[in-house]
Amino acid sequence: MKNHTNRVPGRPKHDKECEPIHDLIIRTASKLFMEKGYEQVSLQQIANACNVSKPSIYYHFTSKPELFKASVTTMLNNVYEKIKYLLREAESIESGLVRVAEARLANPHAELQTIINEAEGNLNEEQIQEIREAELQIYRLLADYFEGAMDKQFFRKNDPMLLAQLFSSMLLIGNRKETMSQYESSYDVGKKLVDIFLHGTTER
Amino acid sequence: MKNHTNRVPGRPKHDKECEPIHDLIIRTASKLFMEKGYEQVSLQQIANACNVSKPSIYYHFTSKPELFKASVTTMLNNVYEKIKYLLREAESIESGLVRVAEARLANPHAELQTIINEAEGNLNEEQIQEIREAELQIYRLLADYFEGAMDKQFFRKNDPMLLAQLFSSMLLIGNRKETMSQYESSYDVGKKLVDIFLHGTTER
Repeated sequence: MKNHTNRVPGRPKHDKECEPIHDLIIRTASKLFMEKGYEQVSLQQIANACNVSKPSIYYHFTSKPELFKASVTTMLNNVYEKIKYLLREAESIESGLVRVAEARLANPHAELQTIINEAEGNLNEEQIQEIREAELQIYRLLADYFEGAMDKQFFRKNDPMLLAQLFSSMLLIGNRKETMSQYESSYDVGKKLVDIFLHGTTER
Repeated sequence: MKNHTNRVPGRPKHDKECEPIHDLIIRTASKLFMEKGYEQVSLQQIANACNVSKPSIYYHFTSKPELFKASVTTMLNNVYEKIKYLLREAESIESGLVRVAEARLANPHAELQTIINEAEGNLNEEQIQEIREAELQIYRLLADYFEGAMDKQFFRKNDPMLLAQLFSSMLLIGNRKETMSQYESSYDVGKKLVDIFLHGTTER
């Protein structure tokens, strides 16, 4: 171990100039779990990628399932805040949805449902519930937005929650590198996707 | 080992009244891989689920990556044939798409992209290409169908391949058990989904 200093045993050193270790672990773990799935990622790999020791991880998170839960819910909360911001700042419903689509297509990650299904056997009921709740708040945010669009008679009447989930599902094409590479930018794909979501595929 | 008989060594016994062992292994392996991902499933588990020995699996498939490739491409070929049949038998473009959606929503499986990403490190270039080709033929089938709808001026002009991938992505909501449980049947969800795909979410 390098850089031995006088610190409380078990307490990992904390570099004040850098990102707090807790946040660094969360950010790194989210990335690895979403890329490779639950089983494929070990705490040792996360420790290596963070340049910390495995005990440092255990200092912050009691177990791998607990770190997984913390990583996934933190990521979902960030997505929630980002979408809320983008929709609030947009000049129209259409441009808000294009901004959300663009952001999501530019940052593709594995379908969460598949990753959670894989991890589920290792998580307890409370951990599963916390992840579901963090995911649900994103759908509720979109559903509320769509409900507003129905109130304004821009959208026709529909189940807003179903629309939220369909819109999110459509964004999964961001995972298809070959498709994305055929377009100039995530913005272009986002615009086409939102056009189809709003106006459908048929002639009017 | 039970039921010793005089058979060629290494050649697993073949029950003529039942499904050929090769097909049984493929069917079981597809199911397990799509449920749990590549890493989580061992050849021993597949052997147990088929009630055969692990050497029987090696008799038919040279390795786990090879069995994975065979399982996934067989599954994709079956999906292809099913969709082709459903679209050909349908009375209208709309009813064809509803039938395809219904069938897919009733048989949800993990997003293939996520499973393949996870397995990719274990597959060689040829195996990856074979899977991609089997997947691509499904998109091409849908894209051709959509192109036909454009020729008939039922659909407005759009990139048919993008439509094929967006339609397939929308079908991933079948993985959301809570959503599906709120509807009477897969047919109901399929009908709503196709309505949005064809006519969009906005008032006309």
